[in-house]
Amino acid sequence: MHILVIGAAGMVGRKLVERLAKDGTLGGKAVSKVTMHDVIEPTAPSGAPFAVKTLASDFSYAGEAEKLVVDKPDVIFHLAAIVSGEAEQDFDKGYRINMDGSRFLFEAVRALNVASNGAYKPRIVFTSSIAVFGAPFPEAIGTEFFTTPLTSYGTQKAIGELLLADYTRKGFFDGIGIRLPTICVRPGKPNAAASGFFSNIIREPLAGHEAVLPVSEDVRHWHASPRSAVGFLIHAATIDGEKVGHRRNLTMPGLSCTVGEQIEALRRVAGDKVVARIKREPDQAIIKIVAGWPRNFDASRAESLGFKAEKTFDEIIKVHLDEELGGKIA
Amino acid sequence: MHILVIGAAGMVGRKLVERLAKDGTLGGKAVSKVTMHDVIEPTAPSGAPFAVKTLASDFSYAGEAEKLVVDKPDVIFHLAAIVSGEAEQDFDKGYRINMDGSRFLFEAVRALNVASNGAYKPRIVFTSSIAVFGAPFPEAIGTEFFTTPLTSYGTQKAIGELLLADYTRKGFFDGIGIRLPTICVRPGKPNAAASGFFSNIIREPLAGHEAVLPVSEDVRHWHASPRSAVGFLIHAATIDGEKVGHRRNLTMPGLSCTVGEQIEALRRVAGDKVVARIKREPDQAIIKIVAGWPRNFDASRAESLGFKAEKTFDEIIKVHLDEELGGKIA
Repeated sequence: MHILVIGAAGMVGRKLVERLAKDGTLGGKAVSKVTMHDVIEPTAPSGAPFAVKTLASDFSYAGEAEKLVVDKPDVIFHLAAIVSGEAEQDFDKGYRINMDGSRFLFEAVRALNVASNGAYKPRIVFTSSIAVFGAPFPEAIGTEFFTTPLTSYGTQKAIGELLLADYTRKGFFDGIGIRLPTICVRPGKPNAAASGFFSNIIREPLAGHEAVLPVSEDVRHWHASPRSAVGFLIHAATIDGEKVGHRRNLTMPGLSCTVGEQIEALRRVAGDKVVARIKREPDQAIIKIVAGWPRNFDASRAESLGFKAEKTFDEIIKVHLDEELGGKIA
Repeated sequence: MHILVIGAAGMVGRKLVERLAKDGTLGGKAVSKVTMHDVIEPTAPSGAPFAVKTLASDFSYAGEAEKLVVDKPDVIFHLAAIVSGEAEQDFDKGYRINMDGSRFLFEAVRALNVASNGAYKPRIVFTSSIAVFGAPFPEAIGTEFFTTPLTSYGTQKAIGELLLADYTRKGFFDGIGIRLPTICVRPGKPNAAASGFFSNIIREPLAGHEAVLPVSEDVRHWHASPRSAVGFLIHAATIDGEKVGHRRNLTMPGLSCTVGEQIEALRRVAGDKVVARIKREPDQAIIKIVAGWPRNFDASRAESLGFKAEKTFDEIIKVHLDEELGGKIA
């Protein structure tokens, strides 16, 4: 089995390929080759039991997507996107990469499907986002709630979802779109994203550093660990498409919890000394942005299809300790 | 005030310009010029109290949309589309006209908006469709129900809605998308569209001809007259955008009624002799297609914004008698 990962230099893409390297299989079939693609050359995992090819290009330029699929990968993970803030600042770049890029990829696969009389029909797993939803929200966003994004990024993801469903309905490929929760705890350095604090207040104190909490403890949000995100991708790659039916885009399960509940989980896992490293510095700009974000979802459809996430924030912290810190608290 | 109508050769576009010619004003302002555009040259109405320019081109080719908006129309009615059946048969043409065409238009307006530092910001009224929804449905489709189209046409309209909302949110223009009910009674000849019978069984008997009813009388559907459709367009062109807020795409009001109720209305308006011209010839293909169509909507949001449709099917028949038959029943 040949797997193509587009957007393989990102955090989730890298962890996905590491998981494939560890498993050696996908859906019970041996993986023979993984192609890792991104706009910068991705790093191959060490010790993979299959061939790894790394590629760098901008797949949003005409002709590039064709090169990526020319050897007909069986499964395509499409994780490539520019993020919300950049798509909002650079309107043209956002549409070029997040919308045209996805469409070029889908068109390149369609051309191979049509040329093979339908014999080539790969599974495409597309990472969408809860940014397809726009406030005001019900207390928990239902499985049939409409997509009225309030960012260009969310608009581009919602368009990607619609294209994925239509190309799938027409039989050009077999697509599944998954709307990821906010990934927590994100490894790496603190970043300037408005959502950064959800991870910062856990990751930094665990590593012995101070972290800034810019919102109040009653802010509620929707989380899953990087390990769950990889699990969603693997499950989406192997699920029976017939069971999914025509509605191909699924809100992934997650954990709805408040910042206060995050902090109490950190106290249980790591103690008062670690929690004391969180500094409260209210930031009105971030408070305002976060007020427009979803707090909770009904993910029963994805759950009934076998997608699984953490049930407590303690588990989410333990995944981070295990994957990033070798179990050690500073 | 200068008005551009794209898709002006179609039935609704033609009736819209006739209404503008009769009124001479839009939203209380005198109309000085109407540009009528379509892929075939539209026919100017006679006796219009303003200048009428007619143009033919394919606006889905790069550069054409710029020509349409170069003299900065104050209001743009974007009615251009290829219909559902053709978009389903010719995948590339459907995406080119219904998706790329809309995007080129929005981009052309955005370029003028940016070049004028935001001074040029026209109202764009975009005709979407209830085809953005896909079965299974609730008994009445709510104002926050999700868009999971089951045709390429519906997908392209849903994408047009998303683009319209995002360009509006960014301030490039001021868009309103309106999802039209099935227009009934459609004037003209019977056509092969699966939905054709809803109009055929009224129009043909009133004109002294037989009509075929291919489904059972308990089939329920969502209707508005051509006069209401024009009313929606006029209201959408003049409504206060602030009141609409970020959710720019609205399901228009309509009348939910069964085929049996249509026939009883015809009996009340035109008598048994006319009703006897309806021949029942069940067609399994049409029965199957129609089973997947919406039956009823909650259009309360559009109603609260002042959009109005007929309350009885008798009214819908009387509009047809008035507009197309000079009140005479054959």
